Amino acid sequence: MSRGKLHAVIIAGGAGERFWPASRQKRPKPFLRVVDGRTLLEATLVRARRFAAKDCVWIVCGREHARDMRRETGLPAQRVLVEPRRRNTAMAVAFAAQHIAGHDPNAVLAVLPADHRIPDARAFASAIRKAAAGARDGALLTLGVRPTRAETGYGYLQLGSAVGRRHAGLRRVKRFVEKPDAARARRYLRSGDYLWNAGIFVFGAQTILDEIREHAPELHRALAPLRQSPRVRSGKRVAAAYLRAPSLPIDVAVMERSRKVWTLPLKIHWSDVGTWLSLAEELGVFPGGTQVLGGELLFDERGGNLVWGQDGRGVALLGVEGLAVIETPDVLLVTKLESSPDVRKIVAQLKRRGRTDLT
Amino acid sequence: MSRGKLHAVIIAGGAGERFWPASRQKRPKPFLRVVDGRTLLEATLVRARRFAAKDCVWIVCGREHARDMRRETGLPAQRVLVEPRRRNTAMAVAFAAQHIAGHDPNAVLAVLPADHRIPDARAFASAIRKAAAGARDGALLTLGVRPTRAETGYGYLQLGSAVGRRHAGLRRVKRFVEKPDAARARRYLRSGDYLWNAGIFVFGAQTILDEIREHAPELHRALAPLRQSPRVRSGKRVAAAYLRAPSLPIDVAVMERSRKVWTLPLKIHWSDVGTWLSLAEELGVFPGGTQVLGGELLFDERGGNLVWGQDGRGVALLGVEGLAVIETPDVLLVTKLESSPDVRKIVAQLKRRGRTDLT
Repeated sequence: MSRGKLHAVIIAGGAGERFWPASRQKRPKPFLRVVDGRTLLEATLVRARRFAAKDCVWIVCGREHARDMRRETGLPAQRVLVEPRRRNTAMAVAFAAQHIAGHDPNAVLAVLPADHRIPDARAFASAIRKAAAGARDGALLTLGVRPTRAETGYGYLQLGSAVGRRHAGLRRVKRFVEKPDAARARRYLRSGDYLWNAGIFVFGAQTILDEIREHAPELHRALAPLRQSPRVRSGKRVAAAYLRAPSLPIDVAVMERSRKVWTLPLKIHWSDVGTWLSLAEELGVFPGGTQVLGGELLFDERGGNLVWGQDGRGVALLGVEGLAVIETPDVLLVTKLESSPDVRKIVAQLKRRGRTDLT
Repeated sequence: MSRGKLHAVIIAGGAGERFWPASRQKRPKPFLRVVDGRTLLEATLVRARRFAAKDCVWIVCGREHARDMRRETGLPAQRVLVEPRRRNTAMAVAFAAQHIAGHDPNAVLAVLPADHRIPDARAFASAIRKAAAGARDGALLTLGVRPTRAETGYGYLQLGSAVGRRHAGLRRVKRFVEKPDAARARRYLRSGDYLWNAGIFVFGAQTILDEIREHAPELHRALAPLRQSPRVRSGKRVAAAYLRAPSLPIDVAVMERSRKVWTLPLKIHWSDVGTWLSLAEELGVFPGGTQVLGGELLFDERGGNLVWGQDGRGVALLGVEGLAVIETPDVLLVTKLESSPDVRKIVAQLKRRGRTDLT
């Protein structure tokens, strides 16, 4: 069997609702220029190009974003896999795996969410290559990040035994753990036995398809039209597959069930930049220190706030701290940073009220 | 001596800085439509017309606002007294008294700040008429409002003895008291002997000029060019007077020193609407209840906030309470309601930094 290439599959599926109102259905989180002077999508692309050849970078995205994705990444249409409807990450991965395997049967895929932040692209690329070696031996790799705080916003991986000499540093995964409460998060941090589940995966295209057949038979059946015509990118067969596919995360559909899951514990700065609170942490908002993204901070008495302003507008803060003040042309959000994960509630309520002009 | 008419003198002198950023130097607080569907200036004019004839309503204002004042009140130019520079209320009153006395030597003046709120215009007019009767007997009247809470944001009047049968209800003023601390404010409230100093005065034009001569000799001297030509409204003589005039409030220059000061204790709803906090109180912001002036409130989890929005923009509040969120085209202010009197600090700092485009 010839040695397949290493492909980067960038999954741009989520709506980033907890980043509302900056993140909208039409222009979700990957397109936001939140840190490092680039959009999260651009930064993901730069990371991908460190380990994947130019013609081995793919994006999976929804129809409504395909044009912007192509324009902002410069990828040719044939490497932008357009999902006819949203079906969560298991189907996105399956579609990419089936399609890429049609071109490169021994392809190894590195699956990267389009909206994470990993400043050290070099260390990341070297980790992906190490994981790819494991993937070439038939394992499903999930990257695990050494926790630096008792975070309750992430899922965890419990470390199992070492894999063996051939793959120094790789470990088996004993189990996946849901987001813990604060006490358990502290225990996990102390024990050293737990890693943050970064949602970044490396596996052979054929391996993941085999595992889907074994652990996610409904998804496997949905893929039948694609198997008959593996290089198809759009049209009836894709529509048929998506119509039948269950909406499941790849973690739940396969990773948590498979016995072939390994991890590579990483000491690396990683964040899913999931909420305004986590962005504030990324930017270094602290008591007395306010961070400003756009707009002009005119006055800030106490500090410890996050300001996402608008060009040509000033923001003045008086007697407040620990706030996120998020301005967009049509909506202003003022939230306690600690309440910011609940922004989803607002989006849900606006949808219920038919105000999709604002979501 | 013929019975002089009752004139309303609307003083539009302050910048309303504690209402920043809605109130600006170019467009200060009297022009804001804050309650009752009218600007504070319009409402003042309506009150004035209840007791003063059409040709007995005057405005004293700064040069930069004269045009807007004329346009928004419909007053003819000859009844808009334009101050060539800002010199506080003693000079504004003196200018008006000197000028109006030139037309109507026995004129009685009711001096009304342009930015207060008194919903019951009828009760107010009847109080002014009662006060005017006292003024015609040579007293300086200051309206006193019966306190309804232990307010620390207002000055107080301590009640003295009754004036006598001829003026039932009028009382002498024992002394003026500066803004008290909370403990003293509570004592004042309990005692029943103290009134809020509403900054609304009624006196004869000649009486106040005489009292100025006695108690504020510097101001008296400054008025010399006007005395030589009492009907003058602008030009060199007015400029010369304003150049020499001290900058003092009429309270300090005369009222606190004169022995002819009477008051009329009023049971009336009155507010100087001095801060965002006091506007919130006027509007009935309470825990759980948010008040919205302009813009659309999309979401408000806790309530107890004051939102001054912009047309066509939505505001969402999450996990916050007791905030004022004040939007203008170029500035957003987010402040704790209780900190809102300190908005002045922001204005002062912006001025120091030369940012008068924003003040």
